[in-house]
Amino acid sequence: MSVKIKAYKKEFDYSYTTGASSTIELLRGRPGIVECVYIHSSYRGGADIGAMCEKAGIRCVESDRIFRVLNQKENSYVLGVFHKYSENLMPDRPHIVLVNPSDMGNLGTIIRTIAGMNIGDLAIIEPAADVWNPKAVRASMGAFFHIRTERYQSFEDYRERYPDHALFPFMLKGEIPPEDAPPAALFSLIFGNEASGLDERFSTLGTSVRIPLSERVDSFNLAVAAGIGVYVFARKNHLI
Amino acid sequence: MSVKIKAYKKEFDYSYTTGASSTIELLRGRPGIVECVYIHSSYRGGADIGAMCEKAGIRCVESDRIFRVLNQKENSYVLGVFHKYSENLMPDRPHIVLVNPSDMGNLGTIIRTIAGMNIGDLAIIEPAADVWNPKAVRASMGAFFHIRTERYQSFEDYRERYPDHALFPFMLKGEIPPEDAPPAALFSLIFGNEASGLDERFSTLGTSVRIPLSERVDSFNLAVAAGIGVYVFARKNHLI
Repeated sequence: MSVKIKAYKKEFDYSYTTGASSTIELLRGRPGIVECVYIHSSYRGGADIGAMCEKAGIRCVESDRIFRVLNQKENSYVLGVFHKYSENLMPDRPHIVLVNPSDMGNLGTIIRTIAGMNIGDLAIIEPAADVWNPKAVRASMGAFFHIRTERYQSFEDYRERYPDHALFPFMLKGEIPPEDAPPAALFSLIFGNEASGLDERFSTLGTSVRIPLSERVDSFNLAVAAGIGVYVFARKNHLI
Repeated sequence: MSVKIKAYKKEFDYSYTTGASSTIELLRGRPGIVECVYIHSSYRGGADIGAMCEKAGIRCVESDRIFRVLNQKENSYVLGVFHKYSENLMPDRPHIVLVNPSDMGNLGTIIRTIAGMNIGDLAIIEPAADVWNPKAVRASMGAFFHIRTERYQSFEDYRERYPDHALFPFMLKGEIPPEDAPPAALFSLIFGNEASGLDERFSTLGTSVRIPLSERVDSFNLAVAAGIGVYVFARKNHLI
């Protein structure tokens, strides 16, 4: 291999999947970006990843050394090295917008959720956790390779690009519960940072939504709140 | 203090909160079980935890040493040591039943979710992740101290104890989506293990529920699926 693989850093122009299931989703969803797949001699999974690679013309190497070098905690036996890429969201499809998400696990979990609800477009407003990090890819269970993601420097940059989506910011003091939102052919569901939520200026953008909450807790976990919001909107608008 | 605090192990009869917010919820929700609160000299949070302890007659110690001993990754500056306890679920309230949950983060996140939706009773079927572990308590953001939890050796043991709840097992091949479930004054929502779900025998218990899912993913994250299910049932039955 031309590139010498090292433990992932954000500035690299490549990343990798860890584990068989994410690697299979990579091979299915984005075969064109795969550089190489590594399989550990202890791999005993049922999937014939070697055959999948061969069919797609992708180099597949049996090697134990790379797994030691990367020193992952998960003890995965399959790695798929892939090149990062950039792409645009679909302008005529619903979007999910995450403003400053800070946790890679949440990011991956939310990607898994939205892919599961047939929403394929995710905008991430910087600063944000690195969506390419193997931890985020792993938390998505490979769903990352079945959706489009695009990063923006600010919410305004996103909005300028896609001015026609009906905006639904999710806020603790939102106007309506998600069930009461009007159906919309084109919508953006907007969720804020884990600790700080969306700042006050979002309350004047579109129709703010509140997930009803008891007095026993201050807020819901971000991935849970996004799951509830996306589910209600996806059902209401017949996406799933 | 009479007990010498060590890094948590499952067999201990005490556990501890890590961080100010969980400790405050401990002091609010379960003051009677608190042994002692430790505050690091670097604590700069706004809450006057010392005053809360004094009011409740709880010993509060400023000590940096205990934080080094416990060697936590989270860099929290407040610790609340508490005694484990056992209690029963309320027989006349809805229940959430987790069958063999394996991830402490999911367990805590689900506790936060159900407390936020005014469901106060959680049954955990063993083998299961340790709900007392500081990681689970932390993931709950202290909501753990506002609900009742009870552990059972088997689902049958749980069912024998609470025979009157309408059962709704959540399964990939469930009969109906959650919105179509009949209202029920007394219900148990049942969720399976992260990797294996609920086994087939649950499909004949009560009314099985399926969260609609696209072909892009195999399943939802457990805490997300529980969040969606609990939300729809809590709204339908006017709990929140």
